[in-house]
Amino acid sequence: MMEPLSSDPVVDQLSLKERLVASCSVDSLLGCFPILTWLPRYNLEWLKMDLLAGLTVGLTVVPQGLAYAEVAGLPVQYGLYSAFMGCFVYCVFGTSKDVTLGPTAIMSLLCSFYIGGDPVYAVLLTLLCGIIQTGMALLRLGFLLDFISYPVIKGFTCAAAVTIGFGQVKNILGLKGIPQQFIPQVYYTFHRIPEARVGDVILGLLCLLFLVMMTMMKNTLGSLEENPSLLVRVARGLVWSFATIRNALVVIAATCVAYSTELAGSHFFTLTGKTTKGLPHFSPPAFSETTANGTSVSFSDIVLDLGGGLAVIPLMGVLESIAIAKAFGSQNNYRINANQELFAIGLTNILGSFVSAYPVTGSFGRTAVNSQTGVCTPAGGIVTGVVVVLSLAFLMPLFYYIPKASLAAVIICAVAPMVDYRVLPQIWRVRRLDLLPFLVTFLVSFWEVQYGIVGGVAVSGLMLLYLVARPELKISDHGVIVMELGSGLHFPAIEHLCGVLRSHALHVSPARCVVLDCHHVSSIDYTVVNELKDLLKQFKLHNVSLVFMGLKPSVLEVLLAAELPGFKHRDSIEAGLQAASSNSHYD
Amino acid sequence: MMEPLSSDPVVDQLSLKERLVASCSVDSLLGCFPILTWLPRYNLEWLKMDLLAGLTVGLTVVPQGLAYAEVAGLPVQYGLYSAFMGCFVYCVFGTSKDVTLGPTAIMSLLCSFYIGGDPVYAVLLTLLCGIIQTGMALLRLGFLLDFISYPVIKGFTCAAAVTIGFGQVKNILGLKGIPQQFIPQVYYTFHRIPEARVGDVILGLLCLLFLVMMTMMKNTLGSLEENPSLLVRVARGLVWSFATIRNALVVIAATCVAYSTELAGSHFFTLTGKTTKGLPHFSPPAFSETTANGTSVSFSDIVLDLGGGLAVIPLMGVLESIAIAKAFGSQNNYRINANQELFAIGLTNILGSFVSAYPVTGSFGRTAVNSQTGVCTPAGGIVTGVVVVLSLAFLMPLFYYIPKASLAAVIICAVAPMVDYRVLPQIWRVRRLDLLPFLVTFLVSFWEVQYGIVGGVAVSGLMLLYLVARPELKISDHGVIVMELGSGLHFPAIEHLCGVLRSHALHVSPARCVVLDCHHVSSIDYTVVNELKDLLKQFKLHNVSLVFMGLKPSVLEVLLAAELPGFKHRDSIEAGLQAASSNSHYD
Repeated sequence: MMEPLSSDPVVDQLSLKERLVASCSVDSLLGCFPILTWLPRYNLEWLKMDLLAGLTVGLTVVPQGLAYAEVAGLPVQYGLYSAFMGCFVYCVFGTSKDVTLGPTAIMSLLCSFYIGGDPVYAVLLTLLCGIIQTGMALLRLGFLLDFISYPVIKGFTCAAAVTIGFGQVKNILGLKGIPQQFIPQVYYTFHRIPEARVGDVILGLLCLLFLVMMTMMKNTLGSLEENPSLLVRVARGLVWSFATIRNALVVIAATCVAYSTELAGSHFFTLTGKTTKGLPHFSPPAFSETTANGTSVSFSDIVLDLGGGLAVIPLMGVLESIAIAKAFGSQNNYRINANQELFAIGLTNILGSFVSAYPVTGSFGRTAVNSQTGVCTPAGGIVTGVVVVLSLAFLMPLFYYIPKASLAAVIICAVAPMVDYRVLPQIWRVRRLDLLPFLVTFLVSFWEVQYGIVGGVAVSGLMLLYLVARPELKISDHGVIVMELGSGLHFPAIEHLCGVLRSHALHVSPARCVVLDCHHVSSIDYTVVNELKDLLKQFKLHNVSLVFMGLKPSVLEVLLAAELPGFKHRDSIEAGLQAASSNSHYD
Repeated sequence: MMEPLSSDPVVDQLSLKERLVASCSVDSLLGCFPILTWLPRYNLEWLKMDLLAGLTVGLTVVPQGLAYAEVAGLPVQYGLYSAFMGCFVYCVFGTSKDVTLGPTAIMSLLCSFYIGGDPVYAVLLTLLCGIIQTGMALLRLGFLLDFISYPVIKGFTCAAAVTIGFGQVKNILGLKGIPQQFIPQVYYTFHRIPEARVGDVILGLLCLLFLVMMTMMKNTLGSLEENPSLLVRVARGLVWSFATIRNALVVIAATCVAYSTELAGSHFFTLTGKTTKGLPHFSPPAFSETTANGTSVSFSDIVLDLGGGLAVIPLMGVLESIAIAKAFGSQNNYRINANQELFAIGLTNILGSFVSAYPVTGSFGRTAVNSQTGVCTPAGGIVTGVVVVLSLAFLMPLFYYIPKASLAAVIICAVAPMVDYRVLPQIWRVRRLDLLPFLVTFLVSFWEVQYGIVGGVAVSGLMLLYLVARPELKISDHGVIVMELGSGLHFPAIEHLCGVLRSHALHVSPARCVVLDCHHVSSIDYTVVNELKDLLKQFKLHNVSLVFMGLKPSVLEVLLAAELPGFKHRDSIEAGLQAASSNSHYD
């Protein structure tokens, strides 16, 4: 059964070329429409589960959408405008059954920095963001996301959760005119606590209490498996249902209370206020704008104003969505395709811009709801989309009465679980150095949330490059010096390697021969070859030899083609030592 | 003599910590003053050679300095202001006997983009550049230069040589008001050839002819070694001397011709024009400026105007100088210290700003002259510095009459050898992919010379990261799947690795066991550990096992600390195969 190792039959050796070829195959073309993989097998059982899940997610996304539009600094209806296109598009193009696209807390926060509360900017940003994401998908740039390491994602998520959660405290307190930047926001929120409105505070805290209780009740459900009596089953079913649609319940209840007090003529609560009625028109986004004071802002001006947002928003949108898809794919044991996900989000944003959406991405919370409710295919999204469209068509006038404090409570409870304390001791135990990108991301995010992730990626990239630039060198003495390269040899490392070799072999008296053990070297570049040529010359000048050992055939071929003067290679360290010592005696 | 390999006595295993400790040792402190290593051994023979070399370089740097100031868009005397401080400073702090600091073609071209012909900007840029370089030296950031690969350096040098050389054609033609950007410059230079001034063209071409002839004569000198008669020796000595001071000869002769025609009342040639007389004052640079029309420009305004130059100029200065020092160190077999070189250049620029210098760096041409003339220690620089100072003190009024065409000829001949055609076939033979950073650097440099090197570094960095992100995976079948990682395992690669493992082992029916051969893996990070945990869970779900093989002790320790569920490790592939297959049968 076990074949000899020296003649391993190489079944699959993935190279860039082969993957390019693979990407053009029929399989891959079919992969562009993942709906084709599940639609032919669709059945009634799946339909039942998808209906239930889609409805539940729909009841979650309506209040969340309204709340997140508030975070983005837009009128609340924009939250719903953004919430349905993704459901339909993802159903056709998505590769995960669980992911639901739509407005999210982090994305709304990011958008708020770039759009300045202006819907024209928001919708144009959606279009551009979609074009960029689709372009990235077509250029197969999904691999770029691999460079965002886990500590960076965690640092960013924690900081964003704190920023978003704290940003809603002002709504619970009923305060207005608090700055958006985190530090001044914290200062002014606390400073102005005496101005808090009693009605908002009481309502907000009650909503929070209800949401926390429902969450806790739901979390304890799983651990009571031993009682299968009907009554208990019904009770548990009720708790589960209430807990699942808790966001909708809270918002509906709070709105009823607010509506009755308003009818009674008292203004206890800060309300959402005027909203536009009905569905958005299907029309291309405006490419210019005339401001209130009559000046017109051209397309290029808007693009300049959006600036860095055109890089941050598309990337973050993709990152968030793919991270979620990966997490649930891993949990439910299916594979997602990063480039296809990228394409689905890009298309959602492009089409979304025609219905006045602001940029969307995958929502962690709603994806979790979807998965837990037992969704079977992305078709569940269609139900969710229909719920949102119906809300827009018939419920908009009622949204006037939604108290802001209740939406704030929904957001705070949604982002709280994103602050994950356990990650710190975990990183500490595994690799302390990885705390650096985590902390950089976390802390810089409080300054400007979008710089946090950039800083973290830069730090982890530099740490990676440092490893490449300074491979471990093990030097041992066997009569001649034997130096083992601990990893690959790329251009940033060659200068260092040559320096160490010179100081150990040439700048000592008498000069020493060296065997360079390269069995970890998997590829070689022109800079390395060039410096090795110089190094070999210097060894020749000192009349000692430098023998290479354990080069892979591909690397050996390159070095032979470069015609290095005095180049010697041996397959084993013994042969290398022999070649080195014979040279020093007889050459 | 040969010890058993399994118990290698590890003599030296360079880690970051040890190098930090080493950098604090006494040796290292003495290393800050390299003059101490050669001054005690100084002797008469060295003095003779240093005097000759210093004088020769001095006669080269005076005309070159005047010409390069022209390239930088500054009055010609600034070329000489910049040419002497480096000679004195480098004598004390430099680690190469050959390198001469001063104005160079590339640096002058780069400066011209940022200083806009304003000496106040130039001198302040010198100070800031010096501070940044010294800071980099103190922070030991010299290693950053390792990330500039050879193809990038070559691409940049070729493009800069073409840009600089062509930029002087307008002076040979006697044209004025030609734009600085390369593309329009080429267009307008050719477009306006009919306006060329006959005097300038004739003088320029004659100067070029003389310089080319002298260079060719000097190049053929080396190959005639068989005739030792006195007459031939004297003749060859004369040719060598004339060839070495050819730049000075050309400029002196052209100036004499121009002076006589001017005295005769005819204005045949475009002259250098008014220069400031005498030595510059030793005073700190001005930190603000009042422009001709009376508006004052503050320090922060100047810094904002300099902008990217504050990154490009210091880095390029260091890069150019260290590249040259490395080249001659390799040729003449001595070691240079990147951080110490960085410090010497930084200090030269800081002190240079007190004598109105613009940013300097190592000059390839003059360093070559220095080396070929047989300089023995950096003391030769003192002689060069004295020559420059004397020229400033006594010859400045004569500089008025230097024809611009003669300086242009000097520059064109100085940069022409920098265009190295042979590098293209060399790269092609060794690694074709390395042509990409070369071409990116070369082509982008014509758009904006400073972006060329940035683009090239970015491209080669991305190529490097791609190698890290997509290690070679060799898959073979021994009953269970054996996957060999071709190189290290860092966070950008883990997603890809897990994907390949899943598709080969889990998404097949029946699921297969895997032995993962990690003997090339030298370190591991948190993201990798985290994804491996997920992967192990999925293997467990499919009731197959994933066995790790050949982990280094340090990596194994980390994985054990992370308490991965179902983690198994074996030392040999046979043991791994056994562990994997036993699990699938009995677990």
